[in-house]
Amino acid sequence: MKKKVVLSGTRSTGSLHLGNYFGAVENWLNLQNKYDCYFFIADWHSLTTGYEDTDNYIANIKEVVMDLYASGLDSDKCNIFLQSKNQDHAELHLLLSMITPLSWLERCPTYKDQLSQLAEKDIRTYGFLGYPCLMAADILIYRAEGVPVGEDQLAHLEITREIARRFNYMYGEVFPEPKALLTKAKVLPGLDGRKMSKSYDNTILLKEEDDVLRAKIMSMVTDPARIRKTDPGHPEICSVYAFHKVFNQAEVASICESCKKGEIGCVACKKNLYGKVSEFLRPIQERRREIAGKPKLMKEILEKGNANAKIKTDETMTMVRKAMKVNWE
Amino acid sequence: MKKKVVLSGTRSTGSLHLGNYFGAVENWLNLQNKYDCYFFIADWHSLTTGYEDTDNYIANIKEVVMDLYASGLDSDKCNIFLQSKNQDHAELHLLLSMITPLSWLERCPTYKDQLSQLAEKDIRTYGFLGYPCLMAADILIYRAEGVPVGEDQLAHLEITREIARRFNYMYGEVFPEPKALLTKAKVLPGLDGRKMSKSYDNTILLKEEDDVLRAKIMSMVTDPARIRKTDPGHPEICSVYAFHKVFNQAEVASICESCKKGEIGCVACKKNLYGKVSEFLRPIQERRREIAGKPKLMKEILEKGNANAKIKTDETMTMVRKAMKVNWE
Repeated sequence: MKKKVVLSGTRSTGSLHLGNYFGAVENWLNLQNKYDCYFFIADWHSLTTGYEDTDNYIANIKEVVMDLYASGLDSDKCNIFLQSKNQDHAELHLLLSMITPLSWLERCPTYKDQLSQLAEKDIRTYGFLGYPCLMAADILIYRAEGVPVGEDQLAHLEITREIARRFNYMYGEVFPEPKALLTKAKVLPGLDGRKMSKSYDNTILLKEEDDVLRAKIMSMVTDPARIRKTDPGHPEICSVYAFHKVFNQAEVASICESCKKGEIGCVACKKNLYGKVSEFLRPIQERRREIAGKPKLMKEILEKGNANAKIKTDETMTMVRKAMKVNWE
Repeated sequence: MKKKVVLSGTRSTGSLHLGNYFGAVENWLNLQNKYDCYFFIADWHSLTTGYEDTDNYIANIKEVVMDLYASGLDSDKCNIFLQSKNQDHAELHLLLSMITPLSWLERCPTYKDQLSQLAEKDIRTYGFLGYPCLMAADILIYRAEGVPVGEDQLAHLEITREIARRFNYMYGEVFPEPKALLTKAKVLPGLDGRKMSKSYDNTILLKEEDDVLRAKIMSMVTDPARIRKTDPGHPEICSVYAFHKVFNQAEVASICESCKKGEIGCVACKKNLYGKVSEFLRPIQERRREIAGKPKLMKEILEKGNANAKIKTDETMTMVRKAMKVNWE
């Protein structure tokens, strides 16, 4: 039986952090064994909010390729490719733009949200408004059946599904409606307890050097009500405890108990955690050092991925142009 | 000295009429002798308002190619090509979308105008709003210095110039600011005295068959105040007279006088005009019959034009990606 096509992408905004890893990449590692996977670096998407400063555009792409490789994505099992190297994405985006009602984009819940959150940036642009339309093109061009998304991205996927339905209704069935593969991602907060995010400056990078890692973990926010070691702690609101749940499943129950009883101090608890995270990152960083010394390998991975992607997008564009009756020979 | 690059396009909405000819094509015939000309069939643009019915999409393209050839455009002197065969247009459109403020598009004078004029069509789409951004890509990708436009299109060209300035300011000088080559086009009204336009159903096509041509001219609206032949006429408000000014310069002065004196009747005046228009169209229609029998020639013209266009757009895209620092090798 033919494997189902699964598509996912990550913006090229620089090195991946543990939030990215547990939010998406860990899941990709499973998916690459089961599905026909297309994982892409969404560098054009990074322009929607980052067009004003592109100094690190290429460096950021390289960081992502290295981190994906280091995490264990295997280009023999899945296709890793660069969006901007495939103009079919741009053409389908343009064609879909013709049938996408403005209101769908204007009403997208994340749109106004981001406009206010990123108020310091000038993102009231045509491209930023059209971001879900580009995302729809990215997904539909692989006729993907599954898209691993977090709950926060369901609204975007819903626009993709609506665009697919509208296209199929107007021109005939070309696109399957992609379904969300909701990930039971492990919840890993940032150092300060908020969501781990580059813009909050509360991340641990996959490539974090050991001394920085140690310092970051030692500075993590714990239960603020716990002043003395003997005060009973509240692990459920402690970000160090949240990390133990991910990195230290063997000890997590006993840590919970000792913390509540005030038997274990935060410093000791953090030192313990540092050991576990450091251990977790070691093989990833080893693979990262491996690929960092081989720029040719990086290029090969993307070229192979892009070549496979192109086979698929060629097929789809032929179907699209035929369905729309715009196929001049 | 290197010839200046001139770019112009025409939407593929079907056979060209005399309004198209005197509004644009006649000017192209001059330009092809003086400049490095890129004339394209804007088939993607025709989707902005015509995405709901694409049954004649390809046939319409063919009509335009035949009419351009028939009018005397010479693919040895200029490049005639099809927009949708060059994905660089789609990529540049996407890149420019990132830096184009929404407000420029929303405030474009023709935008709300068309929304109300084409109220029966559902054109409140993302693509229709972005039409001036696609037009900017079409022009800038040839680093065109001149764009022949009518006065009604000056606003669109101004957006193109603004986008060019913004790009150059942000990323460094790539695009010359294209200047309007304002055409002193001959003014030819439609059969009913309004602007000649397919949507008013008041056109004379370049391919109009002789009996239809005759019937159309005999039904033209003249001076409504003139009931009897001996009533003094008002040529300045008569569309037949406007046609004489274009097609019958030798007799136009005497026709004006006779009409004002009530010495010439409208029927005779129209018969006279029919002869002139018929004579004007004869060589065009001969060339049209020639190419209509040679589908291969049609294909060759576009392929040659597209190949030349691609050389230019390749160059520009390399410059654009480098300036934007998005050029992954």
